[in-house]
Order: sequence, then C-alpha cells, then structure tokens
Amino acid sequence: MNAPAHPTHWVPELAQRAIPEALLTALQTRFGAQYSQAMAVREQHGRDESAFSLPPPSAVVFAESTQDVADAVALAARHKAPVIPFGVGSSLEGHLLAIQGGISIDLGRMNQIVSINAEDLTVTVQPGVTRKALNDAVKSEGLFFPIDPGADASLGGMAATRASGTNAVRYGTMRENVLALEVVTASGEVIRTGTRARKSSAGYDLTRLMVGSEGTLGVMTELTLKLYPLPEGISAATCSFPTIEAAVRCVIQVIQMGIPIARCELIDAGTVRMVNTHSKLGLREEHMLLMEFHGSPASVKEQAETVQEIADEFEGHAFEWATTPEERTRLWTARHNAYFAAIQSKPGCRAISTDTCVPISKLADCLLDSVSEADASGLPYFLVGHVGDGNFHFGYLIDPDNGEERRVAEALNHQLVSRALTLGGTCTGEHGVGLHKMDFLLTETGSGGVDMMRAIKRALDPHNILNPGKIFTL
Amino acid sequence: MNAPAHPTHWVPELAQRAIPEALLTALQTRFGAQYSQAMAVREQHGRDESAFSLPPPSAVVFAESTQDVADAVALAARHKAPVIPFGVGSSLEGHLLAIQGGISIDLGRMNQIVSINAEDLTVTVQPGVTRKALNDAVKSEGLFFPIDPGADASLGGMAATRASGTNAVRYGTMRENVLALEVVTASGEVIRTGTRARKSSAGYDLTRLMVGSEGTLGVMTELTLKLYPLPEGISAATCSFPTIEAAVRCVIQVIQMGIPIARCELIDAGTVRMVNTHSKLGLREEHMLLMEFHGSPASVKEQAETVQEIADEFEGHAFEWATTPEERTRLWTARHNAYFAAIQSKPGCRAISTDTCVPISKLADCLLDSVSEADASGLPYFLVGHVGDGNFHFGYLIDPDNGEERRVAEALNHQLVSRALTLGGTCTGEHGVGLHKMDFLLTETGSGGVDMMRAIKRALDPHNILNPGKIFTL
Repeated sequence: MNAPAHPTHWVPELAQRAIPEALLTALQTRFGAQYSQAMAVREQHGRDESAFSLPPPSAVVFAESTQDVADAVALAARHKAPVIPFGVGSSLEGHLLAIQGGISIDLGRMNQIVSINAEDLTVTVQPGVTRKALNDAVKSEGLFFPIDPGADASLGGMAATRASGTNAVRYGTMRENVLALEVVTASGEVIRTGTRARKSSAGYDLTRLMVGSEGTLGVMTELTLKLYPLPEGISAATCSFPTIEAAVRCVIQVIQMGIPIARCELIDAGTVRMVNTHSKLGLREEHMLLMEFHGSPASVKEQAETVQEIADEFEGHAFEWATTPEERTRLWTARHNAYFAAIQSKPGCRAISTDTCVPISKLADCLLDSVSEADASGLPYFLVGHVGDGNFHFGYLIDPDNGEERRVAEALNHQLVSRALTLGGTCTGEHGVGLHKMDFLLTETGSGGVDMMRAIKRALDPHNILNPGKIFTL
Repeated sequence: MNAPAHPTHWVPELAQRAIPEALLTALQTRFGAQYSQAMAVREQHGRDESAFSLPPPSAVVFAESTQDVADAVALAARHKAPVIPFGVGSSLEGHLLAIQGGISIDLGRMNQIVSINAEDLTVTVQPGVTRKALNDAVKSEGLFFPIDPGADASLGGMAATRASGTNAVRYGTMRENVLALEVVTASGEVIRTGTRARKSSAGYDLTRLMVGSEGTLGVMTELTLKLYPLPEGISAATCSFPTIEAAVRCVIQVIQMGIPIARCELIDAGTVRMVNTHSKLGLREEHMLLMEFHGSPASVKEQAETVQEIADEFEGHAFEWATTPEERTRLWTARHNAYFAAIQSKPGCRAISTDTCVPISKLADCLLDSVSEADASGLPYFLVGHVGDGNFHFGYLIDPDNGEERRVAEALNHQLVSRALTLGGTCTGEHGVGLHKMDFLLTETGSGGVDMMRAIKRALDPHNILNPGKIFTL
C-alpha cells in the first residue's frame, strides 16, 4: 500500500557509532562529486515514510555501479561503520534510518535495465529502477512486472522488504518473483545468488535469504526478475456488500474455488466515502470489493461470471465494470490514493497503519473484531485490504499532538497483531519489520527463530555494518 | 524424475568420525525398540538411489515425534556425532549416505497428517508423509498437492532437496509450496520458521533457507504446505514432432504466450520406443510432447486449442487426447516409468542421469548440442524433460563394469553441465547437490556464493553434525 505508517509508541534507542573522519575523507577521495555531506542531502536520506525522527547519516554516496557499491562497503568495513542502502525512501517502518549512524548508499542512479530476455520472461535490472520504469520498459515487448505496492518504489527496495501489493493474490510477492541477485557482501565482495533458470536445487537459497533481509545481509546491485505476458483480456469490477463480513465471505469462496483472480481488494464504506470526496469517483458508499481478472477474453468472462454468482450468494450487488484501460486506471488510482483521501478527511492528522496477514479462513474473524474495536475507540480510520491474501491495513487517523489518540491507535494496532498471531497469521504481510515491529517479530517467531536470524546476521556481517539495528537487536 | 543417477567419476572421500559407544548406549536407553544397530537396518539406511557405496550409519533411530528427533539430535550434539535425516531413501545424489559416519534418523513413522485446513488451502504434515499419501488424504476435500517428482517421496525429503517434477511449470516447486516448517536445530532446539499466512515480510526467510538445504541446517519435523483445488477440467494430450527442435520451439512459444499449461514434458523418439516396449502403450515412435491442461472446462478447451494451433506451426501432428482419469494415469505412469523402460532396454545396465535446467530460450541450443554429443558417443540413452521449465534429464545407459562407458557418460554429463552454466542455467533443477555436484555448484555459484553458504552452515551447525559433507566441503 501507499500509506506511511506513523508508529509512535516506541522511540528507537539511538546507539550512534563514531564515524571516523578518515572514512569520510576516503569516501570523498574515492567518490568526488558522487559524495555529499551537505545537510539537506543527508536529511533527505535520513527519513522514510515512517514517523521516526532520527539524526541523518554522516554522508551519502551516490553509487553508479556495482564497483561503486563494493568500494563504498569495503571502505566502511575497514572502519567498521554502518552502511544503509537507499532506494526512493518509500519504506514504511524506519528501514533506512541511521539509528547507529553511518553512510547512506543511494542506489537511485543505478537505474538501468541491464537486459530484457523477453523469450525467457525475465529481466535484469539495477536496484534503482522503479516498478513503473520497469513496466514502461517492458510494455513494448508485451510483458509486465506485476508486483504493485502502490508507491513507485525501487525494485531493490521492494526486494529488500519482500514487498507485494494488489496483484500478489495471483502473481505472488517479491519472494516468488526474484530469480537471482547480485549482492555486495559485508566485506565488499560481489556475489551472485542464482541463475536465470526458473528453478534450481543448487545449494542454499541465497536469493530468498536476501529478499526480505532489509539491507542487513548485503546490498543488492542487480536483480533478475520474472516477467509475465500482458494478459489479452483484463477486466476490473466493483461490487458492493451490505456488511464487511459478506464481502469477506465472498472473497474466501472465490479463493477456495481456485478462481485465478488477479486483484481482490476490500475498501470499507467509510473509506469509499473518503475516496469519493478526494477523487470525485461517485462510487456507491458501501463496503466494496475491487477486483481484476486477467486471462484470455473467454477466461476473463468466465471468471467474472463465476465471481458474480458467488457475490450474489453473499448479497453482493451493483456490480460495475471497468474494461477500458482509462477506467481501470481511474479505479486503481483511487484505491492507491485511499491513504491520501483519508489524511485529507481530518485536517492535520497522521495515520498509524497496520499490516497483519492471516489465513483466509480467519480473515472475517480478524477483521470484524478489529473493526469493532476501532469503532468503539472513536478514532476515525481507513480500512483497505489485499483480502485475497488475507492481508489488510487499518490506518488510524490521529492528531499527532494528541498523546491520548496516539496511545489509543497503538493499542488498537497491538490488539490487532495479537489477534492475527493467535489466528495463525503474521504481524507484517508486506511492509517489513524495520525499527517498529521487532517486538512483534519476537512474539511471532519465538526466540529460537530470531536467534537463528541473529546467528546468520553475525556470520555474514561480523562487524554489524549492514543496516544495523533493524529487524532484531543483536 | 524417478531415475536414479549413477555418478562414478568421483569417489567420495571418506572422513568417518568416531561414534562414541556412550552415544550409542544413550540412544539405546532413550529409544529402546525405536533404535537399531542391526546391520540390515543400517545398510538399508546407508544407501539411496545414487550409485555410491559407502559404509552404513552406526545406528538408526526411528523417530515418532518431534521430541524424539530433538532428543536424538541433542544426544548426537553432545557427542559431536553426525545425524542424517532419512525419508524413503529416494534421493538421487547420495544425500543420505553416511560419508562421515553417524546416526540415521528415520522419519518414516512420522507420517501423520497433522491438520487439513481446506478453507485456507493449506495442510500441515509430518515429514514422513509421502506425496501420494497426502493426495489420498486431501482428495475428499476436493484438493490436491501438485508437486510430483515421480517417486513417491516423503514430503520432508522433497522439501530438503527442493524437489519439483512434472507440475512445476504451473504450480512451482517445493520452494513455492512450503509455507512454514517446524525444524529441530543442531542443538536439538525446536523452532518454527513461519506461519500459515500466505505471505509475510517478518524477518529472514528461514523457510526458504531450510528448503533445499538437504538436511544440513536442521531436521524438518513438520511442514505446512499449500494445496490447490482439484481442477474442474483436466485434459492430457500427446503430440508428435519431426524433430526435437520443433518440439522444443513449440514449448517455448506456449510458455512465452503465458498459457497456464499444467504439465509439459518432452520424450524423445528413442525413449518413446523404450516406453512402448515396457508399457505396451502403442505411442507413435516420434519425438513427443506430453501435456496436461487444468482449469474450468471452457478454459481447458481454450488452452488446448491454442496449443494445437501453436503445435501446427511447428509441424506437430497426431494430437491424441486422454480425458478420462484412467487414460491420463496410463500416460503419466508411462512417463514416470521411462527410467525403468530404459534400464530394461539394455540388460544389466545402469543409468547416469543429468539434471540441468536452462532459461527456456536456451533450451533448444542446450538440448540439441547435447543430443548430438550423446549420439556421437555411441552410448544408448533416454531423454525426458520438464521442458516447460527448461529442465531435462538424460540417462546414459552404461554397463557398470565397463570403465570406458562410465568415463564417456560422465564426460557427457560434464559437457552438458558446462553448456548449461554457460547458457545461464543451473547444474541441478530438482535433484540437489548431495555428494555428486559439489564441484558443479562451485563453478555455478562461484566461491563467494559457496563461502556464504559455508558461513551459514558454520553459524547454524558449529560442530558440523547435520548431514555433514553434503553440498560443499567445509
């Protein structure tokens, strides 16, 4: 989703390490105009879409090649100083904040499409390529890259957080769509984690280990991704429901029947109202599913008919179709703008966002109880969800200067995560752990699992220089 | 595939560690009737479907619970003795051979379906459940588990080798279909690597790290897997081609068009001949694609029509359909029996099997050059392939007492792997590294990648007790 999280109940404990002047001098010498210590540049690289406010990194290196990254990391390693990879800064949980100080490595200039292998449905890109730029580049080949987290994030960042979004129900997440990586390790060495073969049993799955490691195990310098043929037929539809439960039970049935729906999003009535006000869409102000079907024209028609029949069973009504690209874009833009629509509904507010994901049979229970709690709290909120995956986001709208509202919102989040974990789910479906969910991760995985992560981290980054202080404490 | 590999150019270097009598006594005391030192039992646990002949493990523990596994590993850890997980013994590369001695932990009695969550399309099983037993158990729910390596392997073993098989082109491999694991670590601790949520960004992907780690990082004691609704429509077809190239070019086009074909197998003319002799199938003795389509009846019809049109372009002919379950079973059984059919074609022979996987655009090049080399060698061979994935297997048929034939076969394998790596592929698509492909892995991944694997191994198994000596040397 496109929505910044603004967690506030926990204040990151600073453990700033000394950054030796000798390192800054060495970086300046090596990188010249690709290096900056200007405060504005440092500050821009010292924040993401989270609400944490921390001192910025000591300097920024604008990498233009794998060798640049390797040299920057090797220099930092020599001085045991932290390095933090930076894409476009759209992460949501404080992932790129310099909690232990250090050097930001901006990968934005590494924005080349290295090679498109249309015949193999693969593409190799540098990490600074954004998902929209990638789609622009491969469209003329009749291909697309489906992962769509809302924000026009960099592919390196999306891989690092194991991002997903609206298309994951059909196409999977970054976990399923990264084939291989080139990675700079903690010592500044360059390794490859896989090949362009679609499957392999050749040793440990280093690719999947790097995906979702949030920059703590290596800096990705090249990504080989899966592409998909642009579907011959695409059709989007909205359908209204009398209750959230009815909408969710409809989704559960669609998924259980194995209908290959490409997108399946829930927007609650209150959020539809906000979206209408913001985007002038004139949508019916009821709980709504926003769906998309991909396939041959006949298959799209068949999927849509089956889903309509299922929706009927759950009192779904007012099916409306968007078949032209323009209509579809309008709908999905509205969906992606739900966050901004919500923010504008309460002047001066911020949103505290949640990211739980549960097995789909538990979705109704998890959602409905959390809706009751949110309603009872009196806080306004938005509610959107990649419900086909069991993943949804509340955004509690708070006055940032009102401590009581913050406390209430964080308490709601905490209750929601506890409920999701009890129901067999996860605290984060797609945003990552970063600085904010370390306690939740411990509860979810248990100390044994987190200890295994720590052991891997220590083995691959013995001086703890790669984005230290994220995911878990050491 | 169902075919044993018989690599012979490399003789594993034994480095048997002393197994203290105190450990054997402690295991005997703890496990009683679940413990055996009988030579027949040890020997049965000291071989797999590879050709390596090594001394058997010192003892076998028949684990019946997670606690049994944890206790066995903890005892072995105390004595720094190797433990080797054993499923059904169908691995192909020497994975479960006691090259450093030690204790075999037989997981075959841990064969319970722990829970079927039909609504969530997930199932949790013990590691000794085989894929056929799983499919029998979930069929009445209208569900199936698609991964089909031919052999009725245990799911623990399939996860450990990152197995796949004929359905991977549509449903992925064990990499995509294991949601979460319970694992006993090197110290005997029990951890969980994930939840039942379909996606998660909660820290390092320990699940994917364990999948394909061949028992070297932990012993899987429970697996949560994805299930799929049994397709409403299933149809299988054979189609003959004048050349292997024509067949392969047809497949490339099918994949590139995004047709969701469920199975897409190549069998070369010589192998069809062997299969006919073995299974009395009366198939046309030409190069052949064996395909299966899953979906709604209309979608299956549409897929099949489109594929027929594509096949026409490549001189595909003699399309024959198998729509009843009996006809389909007959065809796929024949496919899975190709190995045995081949073995029977040359009395007393063994097969040396290959497992390369390349990007699909390189499939024709890789296959055709390797066919030329095999033809020129004069060795008889079979050739089958999961060509939709770019994965195929030669089986060179050799007289095991003929050193020259062995040498020729291993040389062919070596040339093939080199070619596949040059073309951007992998030395093993689905069989794993085991004892046999360690050198190939090093070439494929580079020393940096293998060093990273070694670092992880050392961190998670400091005394190198978990299936030591596999994948890489330490």
